[in-house]
Amino acid sequence: MAETVSTPHLVIEDEEIFDAHVGGKLSVELKSPLDTQRALSIAYTPGVAQVSRAIATDATLAKRYTWANRLVVVVSDGTAVLGLGDIGPSASLPVMEGKSALFKEFGGLDSIPLVLDTKDPDEIVETLIRLRPSFGAVNLEDISAPRCFEIERRVIEALDCPVMHDDQHGTAIVVLAALLGATKVLNRDMASLRLVISGAGAAGVACANILLAAGITDITVLDSKGIVHRERDDLNSFKAELAERTNPAGRTGGLAEALDGADVFLGVSAGVVPEELIATMAPNSIVFALSNPDPEIHPDIAHKYAAVVATGRSDFPNQINNVLAFPGVFRGALDAGARRITEKMKVAAAEAIHSVVGDDLAVEHIVPSPLDPRVGPAVAAAVAAAVDEDED
Amino acid sequence: MAETVSTPHLVIEDEEIFDAHVGGKLSVELKSPLDTQRALSIAYTPGVAQVSRAIATDATLAKRYTWANRLVVVVSDGTAVLGLGDIGPSASLPVMEGKSALFKEFGGLDSIPLVLDTKDPDEIVETLIRLRPSFGAVNLEDISAPRCFEIERRVIEALDCPVMHDDQHGTAIVVLAALLGATKVLNRDMASLRLVISGAGAAGVACANILLAAGITDITVLDSKGIVHRERDDLNSFKAELAERTNPAGRTGGLAEALDGADVFLGVSAGVVPEELIATMAPNSIVFALSNPDPEIHPDIAHKYAAVVATGRSDFPNQINNVLAFPGVFRGALDAGARRITEKMKVAAAEAIHSVVGDDLAVEHIVPSPLDPRVGPAVAAAVAAAVDEDED
Repeated sequence: MAETVSTPHLVIEDEEIFDAHVGGKLSVELKSPLDTQRALSIAYTPGVAQVSRAIATDATLAKRYTWANRLVVVVSDGTAVLGLGDIGPSASLPVMEGKSALFKEFGGLDSIPLVLDTKDPDEIVETLIRLRPSFGAVNLEDISAPRCFEIERRVIEALDCPVMHDDQHGTAIVVLAALLGATKVLNRDMASLRLVISGAGAAGVACANILLAAGITDITVLDSKGIVHRERDDLNSFKAELAERTNPAGRTGGLAEALDGADVFLGVSAGVVPEELIATMAPNSIVFALSNPDPEIHPDIAHKYAAVVATGRSDFPNQINNVLAFPGVFRGALDAGARRITEKMKVAAAEAIHSVVGDDLAVEHIVPSPLDPRVGPAVAAAVAAAVDEDED
Repeated sequence: MAETVSTPHLVIEDEEIFDAHVGGKLSVELKSPLDTQRALSIAYTPGVAQVSRAIATDATLAKRYTWANRLVVVVSDGTAVLGLGDIGPSASLPVMEGKSALFKEFGGLDSIPLVLDTKDPDEIVETLIRLRPSFGAVNLEDISAPRCFEIERRVIEALDCPVMHDDQHGTAIVVLAALLGATKVLNRDMASLRLVISGAGAAGVACANILLAAGITDITVLDSKGIVHRERDDLNSFKAELAERTNPAGRTGGLAEALDGADVFLGVSAGVVPEELIATMAPNSIVFALSNPDPEIHPDIAHKYAAVVATGRSDFPNQINNVLAFPGVFRGALDAGARRITEKMKVAAAEAIHSVVGDDLAVEHIVPSPLDPRVGPAVAAAVAAAVDEDED
């Protein structure tokens, strides 16, 4: 505990960080006090029996008379926490508490963290099925790839409520929003960009998907072994599928080959990018170094070469952080009574985030601040409006 | 929804009850706001990574830097809710939310309800094992007998934290506390009482156990078929075991045979006791009609014959409600870092509840009001003091 989080913008001593986490960051409160006989008779026995009886007779009333319908559970097995890796469920809990806190602060939603002492996809899915009456939506978090793809798919299939693996889709939404801002401020055409994604995990795959859908055709993805291409025989099924849809030029090699002449670097790994490779990118380039807590390249270094630089950290400008997306995405889905979070809702979320920047768009302000109170409601409204009425 | 909760003491229309439950009774709040860049950098990224790293290195730090260590989960499968029976997990949720609210109001503990869509003991135990890093104590609630005995035993064995099935032990603790008060106000010797327990489920078995331990020898227990005695061949293993330890006079028959000349009636079933049977009890008798929401006999009727009458409801005097026990029991166990809730801790809790009545002891005040703010801290202190140091 001797380290210090220190940047040109903020210096925070470890002591202050740890002090702020003593006892955790959440508390459960009563919506109204139980300090009179009358209040007790209403909220507990005998009054509560009326409510339970009513729900037993008409199950749909649970949505109205319990907190479950709008409660988001933040679920993790602690296998891919921030850039820290597989640190286990207990060590992941401070992050999940923070996530639940952000759901409240920016989405107005109640949320609780549930960290699981199992890495088995069957057991994770099964546990959520058993807990189903307790919550209204599932935010999967910090689950390692490629397990996360199967787990998310199976949880979505099993539960009749909004489910999203935020490391995939929350990241993809804010990256698309940021790229909308960066290309606009640089007056560049998004579809013609040559884009490099470092990381073929949860975020990398989801970002590739949403950017392909947004019309970018020249996307090169790298994993720890180098460029993902069709000739490689060491790809899992998710990466093999990615190789089919990306890298149309058939590039091979590593980061040096990928970045030479590229327009956009999108870092979503825990890796490091040397300054000399950033220097080989095309003029007017864009660098999104999103790894947390340590960006792939320090933004001050990246700025020597790139026209727009962003990170995932709250202590630098241009924070591309999922907090811009997930509170509003879940809020909009729950407000609209959606049972699924669709691609259309995700794109609507990205466009809503971008729209909030408005006239304040600048090289150091390509996305709204995560603290901007307009973002959550704007995203929620856009997502709710994008819910297809026939979807339910 | 046309009913009204109406008693001589309180009249509460259904509309007021349902209005108070809209959206549920709990909310998750932030201990400190996340409305500045600095706060976000401390509670979320990058600051939170320091805390997660520290816990990954030293697992014991999770107790200090997360909320889990003192979080009580209120767990139910909805199979025995109040006196309403097997109404399912969703319909049980308003009760569990109320329980969590009471943990906060009277124990100062954060608590969340987890209702399970399974009745299988294996699956219930397994689910809690998987969720173990998420919480610090388990309050099992409204799980039907005899399943509740096995489930509680197995959850206690599986988890290294305080676990209590409140319908058993919470009830037993407050019943003992109330009987200490009733016998004191009537100047009667507790050990010589002839006591009848109607109900051989979770509460009945636990009450018999704690009252036997308190020195009462003449206890007759009834289930739905009548008096539990050794000659019956229709008893499950828990009742058969009860038959061995109770009913020393070898009574047979039903409620009429049991109540004739009895000193204490303790109702912990959803049954009804006719006035004419209460009339056959011994002079100076004690009636605890604890079924919720409908007492076995209306207290005004019971008062025609009994010297002391109590119910489980908050809208009558002498409310023998578990809320006097469970918040302080869990608070004391967690304060002391106990891994088990022992018999010694339960008896200490009963004595602490009784001690709070003090000089206010009266026929209509044999236990403190559930609203008495002294009860929770007194119980917590007594329970913490009763934790054996070698227990951990």
